Amino acid sequence: MKTHNYCIAIHGGAGTLLREKMDARLRKKYENALSAALDVGYAMLEGGGSALDAVVASVSALEDCPLFNAGRGSVFNARGEHEMDAAIMEGSSRRVGAVALVRRIRNPIHLARAVMEHTDHVLLAGKGAERFARKMKIERKPKAYFFEALRYKQFLEAKRENKVRLDHDGGTFGTVGAVALDASGKLAAATSTGGMTNKRWGRIGDSPIPGAGTWADDRCAVSCTGTGEYFIRVHAAAQLSCLMRYGRQSLDAAARKVIFESLQDIGGEGGLIAVDHRGHISMPFNTEGMYRASRCRGEAAWIGIFGGENGDALPNDQRI
Amino acid sequence: MKTHNYCIAIHGGAGTLLREKMDARLRKKYENALSAALDVGYAMLEGGGSALDAVVASVSALEDCPLFNAGRGSVFNARGEHEMDAAIMEGSSRRVGAVALVRRIRNPIHLARAVMEHTDHVLLAGKGAERFARKMKIERKPKAYFFEALRYKQFLEAKRENKVRLDHDGGTFGTVGAVALDASGKLAAATSTGGMTNKRWGRIGDSPIPGAGTWADDRCAVSCTGTGEYFIRVHAAAQLSCLMRYGRQSLDAAARKVIFESLQDIGGEGGLIAVDHRGHISMPFNTEGMYRASRCRGEAAWIGIFGGENGDALPNDQRI
Repeated sequence: MKTHNYCIAIHGGAGTLLREKMDARLRKKYENALSAALDVGYAMLEGGGSALDAVVASVSALEDCPLFNAGRGSVFNARGEHEMDAAIMEGSSRRVGAVALVRRIRNPIHLARAVMEHTDHVLLAGKGAERFARKMKIERKPKAYFFEALRYKQFLEAKRENKVRLDHDGGTFGTVGAVALDASGKLAAATSTGGMTNKRWGRIGDSPIPGAGTWADDRCAVSCTGTGEYFIRVHAAAQLSCLMRYGRQSLDAAARKVIFESLQDIGGEGGLIAVDHRGHISMPFNTEGMYRASRCRGEAAWIGIFGGENGDALPNDQRI
Repeated sequence: MKTHNYCIAIHGGAGTLLREKMDARLRKKYENALSAALDVGYAMLEGGGSALDAVVASVSALEDCPLFNAGRGSVFNARGEHEMDAAIMEGSSRRVGAVALVRRIRNPIHLARAVMEHTDHVLLAGKGAERFARKMKIERKPKAYFFEALRYKQFLEAKRENKVRLDHDGGTFGTVGAVALDASGKLAAATSTGGMTNKRWGRIGDSPIPGAGTWADDRCAVSCTGTGEYFIRVHAAAQLSCLMRYGRQSLDAAARKVIFESLQDIGGEGGLIAVDHRGHISMPFNTEGMYRASRCRGEAAWIGIFGGENGDALPNDQRI
């Protein structure tokens, strides 16, 4: 059997991170968290594991880390609650599972996987999804587990200003996601999020919507982050695949077109990570920064936070 | 200003309608309902109204008709309840609004439009969406309004057999939708559904997912019906647009490719209606029938129920 150049990329959200607030100590915290999440996924691929297992492992690690807006550390909606969304998709089989508006689930990505593997459905939401979680014995956590003081402060500020927003000016911020190609040539994508601070009760963003925030087929795997409503309006993740398939564009050209043309033209902000069936990786974003990391077979891990408008690494991105 | 060849197409669902159960009297009932829904939308276009107003008018009429699985006459989920989904999208602006898992709303398509016009969000679900409906003074109806004895019988049968299904063998069946091009050249699409009989509590299908069951951009407007999970897995509605935009295919070639290749290859069943910016209409389906009707500027209305595998009208389809 041909062995593919397995690789994995992860993100921890994109937005207008302020450089001046990112001191060396805080930067190190993020880098360590990204590095740890990347390692667990890469180790799976190195050991012959599937892309599906790798993206679940990396996303679970990011969900467990309170620095990111998913699982523990999720933002608060307009009612001061957590409502989390997640999706997972396997490229070759087109199997996909997603959950929306779930509370108290430690790892929403595990629940999304259970929907994919144990139901006839793709997307379950709200209390019906939570009931299914109990049936599947998916781990729950008490409300206090998800509470982060900084998130609550951001929520109170957003509420006072009557704004729905990404975590713009905090030290912490962002949806999480992972994409991977395994040694057998299979692709998978996973995304998990707490959504937007002060979002309306019942709002579902792009993350759990296959084709918008999450997508995988036999060509590429994609996970997006940013102002979700705009990603939906350009069906960002699946559009990338269409540009490759029908427009005969490379992964990187397609990824840039989605972010710097389709998304930007309608005023959307954010970024995406994508990997194709040959092991190329692209991570464009039109915001000041995107927490991101990647590693390909036989290469060193790469971690970045800020970047140029073209999505390239700037000098302050570093190889570790 | 150039006046476009305005036109509208509607559907009332696709599935394995059994010809032997469709006697002349029942057929007439469906034709009358389709004709009435088509007329209200066409009249709007004829009077210079927008594509958006036309699809809302037609879909509302179909929601109000208990023959179809949307609004009044929606199917029952696994808990014996109604949970309705709907979406609306305007092509030129890419504005889109959707609701999922809403109960007691007479016209879910009106609520989807309110989400589009009065929130920063695209998709609201469950109790959060219902609360928004109250705030917007969207018309509610008591539970009894939605109850149809035949639907309940189908539900009890499906529950006994432990099956999730479309309304396969009943006289009544199907999601509803409309697509239109108006005289100013704008496109719009709308879809509304009660989902699948005996579906799991909290299941969201393709209808309210932009790109899957509903889509509109400056190229085409699309509304799908069938086994929703499969439409999601091929991002059916937006794929059609991609095939036109990047694959340079005609509307009809693209629509057929989505249904007879992408959808069919993974075992999906159903159909779609689509209109492009030049006023072409395509209505392919791979099931035995699809309730459908269309009318273009200066032409007579066209209504069909059964059809050939290629989606063409068969002799028993008729011009009225």
